Amino acid sequence: MPNSKMIALGEHRSVIRDLFEYGMERKKIVGEDNVFDFSIGNPSIPAPEAVGKELVRLIEETPPTALHGYSSAAGDPAVRRAVADYIRKTFGVNETPDDIYMTCGAAASLTISLHALLNEGDEVIVFAPFFPEYRVFIEKAGGVVKVVPAQGEDFAPDLDAFARTLSEKTRAVIVNSPNNPSGAVLSEETLNAIAGMMKKQSRLSGAPVWLIADEPYRELVYDGVTVPYPMRCYADTLVCYSFSKSLSLPGERIGYIALCHEAEDRDRVFAAICGAGRALGFVCAPVLFQKMIPALLGQTADVSAYRKNRDLLYSSLVSYGYTCVRPRGAFYLFLKAPDGDDAAFGETCRKRDLLIVPAAGFGMPGWLRVSYCVSEKTIRGALPVFEKIAKEYGLK
Amino acid sequence: MPNSKMIALGEHRSVIRDLFEYGMERKKIVGEDNVFDFSIGNPSIPAPEAVGKELVRLIEETPPTALHGYSSAAGDPAVRRAVADYIRKTFGVNETPDDIYMTCGAAASLTISLHALLNEGDEVIVFAPFFPEYRVFIEKAGGVVKVVPAQGEDFAPDLDAFARTLSEKTRAVIVNSPNNPSGAVLSEETLNAIAGMMKKQSRLSGAPVWLIADEPYRELVYDGVTVPYPMRCYADTLVCYSFSKSLSLPGERIGYIALCHEAEDRDRVFAAICGAGRALGFVCAPVLFQKMIPALLGQTADVSAYRKNRDLLYSSLVSYGYTCVRPRGAFYLFLKAPDGDDAAFGETCRKRDLLIVPAAGFGMPGWLRVSYCVSEKTIRGALPVFEKIAKEYGLK
Repeated sequence: MPNSKMIALGEHRSVIRDLFEYGMERKKIVGEDNVFDFSIGNPSIPAPEAVGKELVRLIEETPPTALHGYSSAAGDPAVRRAVADYIRKTFGVNETPDDIYMTCGAAASLTISLHALLNEGDEVIVFAPFFPEYRVFIEKAGGVVKVVPAQGEDFAPDLDAFARTLSEKTRAVIVNSPNNPSGAVLSEETLNAIAGMMKKQSRLSGAPVWLIADEPYRELVYDGVTVPYPMRCYADTLVCYSFSKSLSLPGERIGYIALCHEAEDRDRVFAAICGAGRALGFVCAPVLFQKMIPALLGQTADVSAYRKNRDLLYSSLVSYGYTCVRPRGAFYLFLKAPDGDDAAFGETCRKRDLLIVPAAGFGMPGWLRVSYCVSEKTIRGALPVFEKIAKEYGLK
Repeated sequence: MPNSKMIALGEHRSVIRDLFEYGMERKKIVGEDNVFDFSIGNPSIPAPEAVGKELVRLIEETPPTALHGYSSAAGDPAVRRAVADYIRKTFGVNETPDDIYMTCGAAASLTISLHALLNEGDEVIVFAPFFPEYRVFIEKAGGVVKVVPAQGEDFAPDLDAFARTLSEKTRAVIVNSPNNPSGAVLSEETLNAIAGMMKKQSRLSGAPVWLIADEPYRELVYDGVTVPYPMRCYADTLVCYSFSKSLSLPGERIGYIALCHEAEDRDRVFAAICGAGRALGFVCAPVLFQKMIPALLGQTADVSAYRKNRDLLYSSLVSYGYTCVRPRGAFYLFLKAPDGDDAAFGETCRKRDLLIVPAAGFGMPGWLRVSYCVSEKTIRGALPVFEKIAKEYGLK
């Protein structure tokens, strides 16, 4: 018998991936324009022009063996330096190149961090709603998932519940802001409150409770919202970053882990990160895209297109009578199932080739995620379908 | 405390990586030309011209969102089809696109395969000498390493010892031909003998013993040697391939797992591969380099340059009185420590800025690995150093 847990993970794909694959098959049958696929966070906005230019420049100007050769396991030294410089200058923290570990994207940043930090049976706290793969990553690293519910209209964490969930078994806490799937952004006040409780628990436990900040959506914010930098609130932090969404490069698998320079036991934690990357088989982050990064730090794809999508989608859905969370960041809109049954509502939509993701797996049954990183045409095509379904459900 | 095993793996880097990093630092001090770095398998021969051309063509002709977007987790369907077609036509087996899983290089192919197949405590047999990271990968996947020694001048596996090592606990056997570090190639006769014993054990165990064929060096062979295709000898096979060495793209992390079409329980094993890739955080193989593959299958960098290196290095070292294995493939030469102490001999060489890897970690104490995927200039610069050391050791 192969490993039964791995079989189960392979046979029961993530709901997101499952809908995405279904959508691709369905498009072949009924045509691209007749499937409204809001399933996956695959950016629709092209990478900034600088990406193509820098690719061509690197190919033309770099000898192939240097261009495509191995880098150090933690990343090309010049790239690590550029990332550290950018973080230091942008966020006013003390990052050095030795704090940066280049990765194959956000998922790798998370799995490497978790395998570095966790011992068998350690607890990891996540705040609902949360990206369902967190559970897969945490459990594979030997951890136990503890979910803290959200509260209120802005989906802020229930801090009382958080205080009750923290214990000597807590090894790490994952925050994800801007949030997938709700589009909510943690305020500095909330982050400070979370950090304060973690500091208290760390003192009680005699060992740090680690903050893992999953930040692929940091630059995708609207209405002038600012996203506080977690290291400024809490030293024992690992920022897990990816360029997938900000630069529209999700397939290229490029990101980093930034370990806070003031973290306790910094050298050994960084060693554990290197050890976990090695043991999981990552070797080094894809090297051509590593070399792209210094020229692209701080740039983003055209975020205003996502804002337009958000405005159109949010205002339309609300006008049809749906209950939604107004997203302040990322490119997800959280929609309440009219009768509270997310699976059934998702299925109703799927039958009309409208693909949105039931959020039970995100720790928030009764809700669905609508990824609006799609073309405006897809949204305009889908709106009549959303409206029709709203009428059938007797909304307005 | 972070995970102590991961700390240890990070603090005690692989001997290879350690020497490689040392060499890079040392070059800054004494100059590029004064360090003779034979530590790592970083190809010195540029990628074939077709690589640069195909990169530019893809960038010019593909819309950025399609070029850099996510692929399916198992890989882009057109790429999986091209790989399956190539394997079918080249090796006369029955691979279909559904048997191919694109990966982030050979290390990922191996870790994903091991996590897919192994349950805690399962044994994995490796033949000495073996790539030391096998131990890291196997143990991280919960497995136990069992080493079968080599015998004779051609470093063929000791088949009697193999028969004694196979048991009901054996879940998998790793073969690596052409071999890192010895450059030896398994003959069809030996592979058939191994397969025969594995079939017998599978019947006894009532479950397949899996053959994991680690094949990044398949195309790098000399003197007309042919490398038998393992699936032709044994159905329960996973071929772990990488384009790192054949196309001189080691930093780009692109390879695949090919599961034999006739493997027992094929669907569930493939599901377990998908599950393991997901749980380890791979998401999809880097997508630009995935898309490069159909145009490049069957091409290689200029292998004749490695053959020239081999001839120059082998004949020179033998003429100085060293005992070496004549490599038939890959780009490694296995050298016997004159006094049997590989660590001390490696240190003697290191003091003269000649970096070769003691092979105790490869399961073959008393030997050292010389990676000759370097420039001819590096070899010519190193030969007087090798000769001087030979004289000091009283060889000839």
